[in-house]
Amino acid sequence: MTYCVAISVNSGIVFCSDSRTNAGVDMASVYSKMFRFDLGTERQFVVLSAGNLATSQATMHQMKKDIRLNTPVNLNTVTTLNEAADYLGEVSRAQMERHDNSGPAFEASFLLGGQIKGRDHGLALIYPAGNHIRSSVGTPYLQIGESKYGKPILDRIINQDTTLETAALCALVSMDSTMRSNLAVGPPIEVILYTANSFALQPYHRFEEDNDFLRDLKKAWDNRLKEAFNQLSPMTWTYKDKKVINQ
Amino acid sequence: MTYCVAISVNSGIVFCSDSRTNAGVDMASVYSKMFRFDLGTERQFVVLSAGNLATSQATMHQMKKDIRLNTPVNLNTVTTLNEAADYLGEVSRAQMERHDNSGPAFEASFLLGGQIKGRDHGLALIYPAGNHIRSSVGTPYLQIGESKYGKPILDRIINQDTTLETAALCALVSMDSTMRSNLAVGPPIEVILYTANSFALQPYHRFEEDNDFLRDLKKAWDNRLKEAFNQLSPMTWTYKDKKVINQ
Repeated sequence: MTYCVAISVNSGIVFCSDSRTNAGVDMASVYSKMFRFDLGTERQFVVLSAGNLATSQATMHQMKKDIRLNTPVNLNTVTTLNEAADYLGEVSRAQMERHDNSGPAFEASFLLGGQIKGRDHGLALIYPAGNHIRSSVGTPYLQIGESKYGKPILDRIINQDTTLETAALCALVSMDSTMRSNLAVGPPIEVILYTANSFALQPYHRFEEDNDFLRDLKKAWDNRLKEAFNQLSPMTWTYKDKKVINQ
Repeated sequence: MTYCVAISVNSGIVFCSDSRTNAGVDMASVYSKMFRFDLGTERQFVVLSAGNLATSQATMHQMKKDIRLNTPVNLNTVTTLNEAADYLGEVSRAQMERHDNSGPAFEASFLLGGQIKGRDHGLALIYPAGNHIRSSVGTPYLQIGESKYGKPILDRIINQDTTLETAALCALVSMDSTMRSNLAVGPPIEVILYTANSFALQPYHRFEEDNDFLRDLKKAWDNRLKEAFNQLSPMTWTYKDKKVINQ
């Protein structure tokens, strides 16, 4: 399993991914799911991947190879983020079909974000079918993998005006909730920020399992949540509905 | 979709369910998913259902009929909660198979909780296959339907010593998070408490969409969560990892 989230706000994009892969509980490994395409001062991309590891590795490998061989379509030649997303989707499908690997077990999903000079920064989710959706003002974040546990906090905190630092913190809280509920999502946790128009992928941070900040955040969030819950007004039970019980 | 949660603590059991059913977005209806089997001063049961509405309605109908006809095995004759869960599972499977309805689309899951005199109160989750699991000291709550969004708060708050009132409030917060993230889960929300050794199902409350308590709880929890998040220490970015970016 995997959990990746990317948040696109006015000031830039936050990318956050876990690093646990597993094919059964005794086949758990650590693989980064964050791929940086640092293509100079005019284009920067980050890809996060979820799903079949062979498919996603082959897709990243092919995309790097296309850049190296300067094929007609690659991340250096696309002129928009939509073109980049379409290209990634085609490469992903081609890798899956190469081995006659159809079916959900061989599928991979991707988050692709970044900026091409002269255009706004942007974020897309590429489905296994090769098609994609973009983030929007109403939906500033996109997730792949085990998305549900960590969604409520994103829904409450994130909007277009959220700062990059706050968005990054929220992504880590969302990751913490997911790790707590799904053992197949685990550290190291990688976070990278892209500030709009900076054409530089930084800061980057990789939080290991024993990282102090991550451990403190986990503990602090647990305590704050419990406090928040304890501050709620107790339930006011009215017994007027007692008659309903005997229906 | 559906979300039902039941929490079994030392002092009793809390049951909480939504009431929205849908077969496509334009076929949304309101059906209670909470069924009370008030069988007198020596046995009380509550069933919550998720999944195919025809299967779950047929299952509840057959269980009531078995009580009325006093068949050899029914909720009045079973001697343990495990027997009750096995019986429910058999009825559910029989209803599904009656119409040659195999496959996930016809499946239903159930939560069954209650108490038989002379035994402890207990809680079970009955799968579509007819088998079941019980709650435990380590896992005091069980969920069916859209369980993920509302799980993190349960994991943080609930343990064996949680009071029934706190457990009920936590179930409502868990329900609120689920409703916020999945439109197919919706009010009225039903909550019922069973106090251990009381052999009475009360209090019961049905919260309609415009219920003041539910609306205030939603708002208060939203505010408290945002406050909790805002109280977290900001991220401490170290640029020492900058070298990693250029790898």
